[in-house]
Amino acid sequence: MDILVSEVGPRDGLQSVKRIMRTADKHRWIAALAQAGLREVEVGSFVSPRALPQMADCAEVVAQALTIEGLRVVALVPNFKYAQQAFAAGVHLITIPVSVSEPHSISNIRKSHAEIIADVRAIVALRNERYPSVQVDAGLSTAFGCTIQGTVPEDDTIRMAVTMAECGVDVVNLADTVGYANPAQVKRLFVRLRQAVGAKSGGAHLHNTRGQGLANVVAALDAGVTTFDSSQGGIGGCPYAPGATGNIVTEDLVFLLESMGLATGIDLDRLMAARAVLAEALPGETLYGYVAQAGLPKDFAPASARRAA
Amino acid sequence: MDILVSEVGPRDGLQSVKRIMRTADKHRWIAALAQAGLREVEVGSFVSPRALPQMADCAEVVAQALTIEGLRVVALVPNFKYAQQAFAAGVHLITIPVSVSEPHSISNIRKSHAEIIADVRAIVALRNERYPSVQVDAGLSTAFGCTIQGTVPEDDTIRMAVTMAECGVDVVNLADTVGYANPAQVKRLFVRLRQAVGAKSGGAHLHNTRGQGLANVVAALDAGVTTFDSSQGGIGGCPYAPGATGNIVTEDLVFLLESMGLATGIDLDRLMAARAVLAEALPGETLYGYVAQAGLPKDFAPASARRAA
Repeated sequence: MDILVSEVGPRDGLQSVKRIMRTADKHRWIAALAQAGLREVEVGSFVSPRALPQMADCAEVVAQALTIEGLRVVALVPNFKYAQQAFAAGVHLITIPVSVSEPHSISNIRKSHAEIIADVRAIVALRNERYPSVQVDAGLSTAFGCTIQGTVPEDDTIRMAVTMAECGVDVVNLADTVGYANPAQVKRLFVRLRQAVGAKSGGAHLHNTRGQGLANVVAALDAGVTTFDSSQGGIGGCPYAPGATGNIVTEDLVFLLESMGLATGIDLDRLMAARAVLAEALPGETLYGYVAQAGLPKDFAPASARRAA
Repeated sequence: MDILVSEVGPRDGLQSVKRIMRTADKHRWIAALAQAGLREVEVGSFVSPRALPQMADCAEVVAQALTIEGLRVVALVPNFKYAQQAFAAGVHLITIPVSVSEPHSISNIRKSHAEIIADVRAIVALRNERYPSVQVDAGLSTAFGCTIQGTVPEDDTIRMAVTMAECGVDVVNLADTVGYANPAQVKRLFVRLRQAVGAKSGGAHLHNTRGQGLANVVAALDAGVTTFDSSQGGIGGCPYAPGATGNIVTEDLVFLLESMGLATGIDLDRLMAARAVLAEALPGETLYGYVAQAGLPKDFAPASARRAA
């Protein structure tokens, strides 16, 4: 496998959808994604069920996902308290959103930089002491710009990445939370990220709010990025952009990578089957994506199939 | 100006829309595009009015467009007969679609390779003799794949490019007519195109059928391409992909380039004003594009404005 596509729809997608997907449907969908070849799924977030009732069943979703052989189960946590729940649930990987923009951090998780940094240290210490096999990542939100702060200086992003590495996280990912990133910036920042944190340099979490998602993927590939988050059907939208998709669409991302000759291990036909499971579980919800509409090209030869042949 | 964005909506867009835009509306739209800073517009095609009644007023549209100061007026012609009309109408640039896939050529313009090559030679000869100031370009359709033939070997595309250069066209452009291209292929082919035809190496005409349009732009930029076709509102769709857009969307392309620091000379607010003219002229028609929905980022500083400041 050349590229790891990490599915975040059950977390980033479903938390933005008003309706609550039934726990059994979440399991069917996650299982279908695994069947399609997805190796890593962010299945939910441990957060206040009052704030995000869509995620109230997260521990149960994790438990079911852990029964799927070969699947790496990821959960997001906003602070130390919920990290304890995630560790107890048995996830393989915890991801902590850390906003480079402090106003966004305060608005999103009600924590200053000092507070979230203290939490990250505490989460890493708990992992080191009691859950040594669990990976702990930081996802730097608003790494490319912020709807509240506006421009986010690149030095701020790199400084926060270094701080996270020093806190002991395993991997630092960069997130274009609000769809402000452009390819030149993406390439520059991922090159700098690698220079700054070396092997802890992680993947890209890109939104498609302004239609630039896959363009930014090409730039990130050019900078050596090998892990990409995406969401099936691009579900979730973006509260700041009615009608615009949120995350980049898994189907279109996999098509991009496979047609470029980069193997993902994902089968596009089975991925469409998983999309049908999602559509059935959220009837009437808008699913995004071009490949699902247009179909595959005549003679299409995905890299993964050629590798397997 | 770093990059030339060549608007093809009035031709490639309108010929795929069932309704016929009124001549006066075409002029208003083209004028609004020029007001936004577009320097080059493909205003129509000289073709059989029975086959494409949307283009029946092409000579009049050209005449009106020629009154707009500083605008380069482009028309498409499928053969020698219609090239004569285009020259007579006074266009600045004639573009001839030449399919790399011969089955597509026969289905699209009912000409074998030998026949279209003979026509190109005749058009260039007429230009040389009577219209020396008019530029004549070839646009290689299906350069990246074909819905009829399937895979189009890269050698075939380069061979046809060389043939066109030998026929005396000024510039050879590559077109992803059916949205099959991927960034790796786009980069390879544009690098080879420059090696093969040198200064006659032209721009990219990309479709967004599978959502890969702007990703392919990034790859083409990387290969040194400086001219891109696009269509306002992505109008036209694609007959092979219901619901999927046709050409890449001018608004999203300009946003991409300007945010990357590449000046286009185009003002995004005025471009949105031109989009409103288009929407008014084709009420109810679906217009595509993310930036028009999401708006510009806070603190957005387009390259053209920074250059002008």
